[in-house]
Amino acid sequence: MINITQPISGYGVAKVVDSTHPEYKNGDLVWGMTGWEEYSLLTAPGLLFKIQHTDVPLTYYTGLLGMAGMTAYTGFYEICTPKKGEYVYVSAASGAVGQLVGQFAKLLGCYVVGSAGSKEKIDLLKNKFGFDEAFNYKEEPDLDAALKRYFPEGIDIYFENVGGKMLDAVLLNMRVHGRIAVCGMISQYNNDKPEATHNLIYIIPKRVRMQGFIVTDFYHLYPKYLEMVIPRIKEGKITYVEDVAEGIESAPTALIGLFIGRNVGKQLVVVSRD
Amino acid sequence: MINITQPISGYGVAKVVDSTHPEYKNGDLVWGMTGWEEYSLLTAPGLLFKIQHTDVPLTYYTGLLGMAGMTAYTGFYEICTPKKGEYVYVSAASGAVGQLVGQFAKLLGCYVVGSAGSKEKIDLLKNKFGFDEAFNYKEEPDLDAALKRYFPEGIDIYFENVGGKMLDAVLLNMRVHGRIAVCGMISQYNNDKPEATHNLIYIIPKRVRMQGFIVTDFYHLYPKYLEMVIPRIKEGKITYVEDVAEGIESAPTALIGLFIGRNVGKQLVVVSRD
Repeated sequence: MINITQPISGYGVAKVVDSTHPEYKNGDLVWGMTGWEEYSLLTAPGLLFKIQHTDVPLTYYTGLLGMAGMTAYTGFYEICTPKKGEYVYVSAASGAVGQLVGQFAKLLGCYVVGSAGSKEKIDLLKNKFGFDEAFNYKEEPDLDAALKRYFPEGIDIYFENVGGKMLDAVLLNMRVHGRIAVCGMISQYNNDKPEATHNLIYIIPKRVRMQGFIVTDFYHLYPKYLEMVIPRIKEGKITYVEDVAEGIESAPTALIGLFIGRNVGKQLVVVSRD
Repeated sequence: MINITQPISGYGVAKVVDSTHPEYKNGDLVWGMTGWEEYSLLTAPGLLFKIQHTDVPLTYYTGLLGMAGMTAYTGFYEICTPKKGEYVYVSAASGAVGQLVGQFAKLLGCYVVGSAGSKEKIDLLKNKFGFDEAFNYKEEPDLDAALKRYFPEGIDIYFENVGGKMLDAVLLNMRVHGRIAVCGMISQYNNDKPEATHNLIYIIPKRVRMQGFIVTDFYHLYPKYLEMVIPRIKEGKITYVEDVAEGIESAPTALIGLFIGRNVGKQLVVVSRD
């Protein structure tokens, strides 16, 4: 899968140390697609964004103010078309995207339940991110029963990050005219053959809209997102939890941790604090 | 499944022979939810429509000018949001709904391919309904390969009537920002456990929107539909094939025929020609 003669690419925050591009000069701070390396040569800066607001932690631009934030923002507002009071369920809810979807949904006045895979994460969801309820999917032998417990009237919006058995259970619990934003299916990425979905047929009687999306289609909304989110960060209405690994040598272990649920919050790797 | 102490309900065309309802008088022609019986007592006429245009065959109100027509119209125009020139695939394409979706798509200037289960049906699709191409899915051991043959550039719109293996093959062949209107999954209705879908994950990279719908949500558009379709029927731009079974005693066999693909075109049962 990975070409080891090239650095692995990934979203990062960087300082320009040399530039022949007219729009970038030495000292500019940027976020966007860089490499797993200490210095990157970027020949096509199309996916770089200049950092204008430096009165927030720069690490936020790897997540809350970068791709994860935009994914949560556009996935929730553009794909899910949410309304105040709706019932929202988020899987992988303590992750970089999920924690924000839950907070955006609460800000809008929705009822929000999240699931994650450890007690520590469930505590975060309830006590730090303000989810109405949260549960550990690993302790639920019957996911359908768990969802019925938290959503006795069904789910209006499901923000899908995991796929597999969770999606099947959700499909049994959607409300009429429900919406599913399919952001990721992390439980499936390392399967040779994707796990089967059995309950798709329920999208007919429930008139469910299910939509896959990729955040890069929505980057034109980035200024609008910053305008919404930066004041809320400063007011303390949005919080963000990061899981920081130190040094580029910790990156492979950090990556593997994503697939076994070891990270709590946005996983990031500090290559340099300069 | 069926309560045999009550007549089976179904969409039919009927003449009012007695009425205490102020909006219906003797002799009115109506279509809507009636019963598998010669005379029906309708106590809640909420799903009845008065027939205003009698210069077209009355049987059309069981299909082309009734629920099937509205299903094709709203599923294609409202759910699929089609654009001229797009690549459209219709399964169960010779059925009551499919034959119309194909014709609506051709009227809009799309490229349209249909699949069905017999040579006779394929001939109809190509020679009577004007599909660009059609294939017999029973003769295709590899549905993915068949779709790649007819859609080398992929599918923009899939009008889903069958489910199962066909949907999995389609998911491998959707174009970016494709749309799937999930109208029915007839291959699944008689399974104790729905057949699994394996390729749902592809809706993420392809940003596919998949939407289940039920035509009754769109009945307010019926006058608009008639305005569009009746002139086109009269101009011969829309054709419709019906498979007429004679006598109410033929109804059970006709119903079973739907699940084994025996009918060609809209299956209807003539209870009375009065």
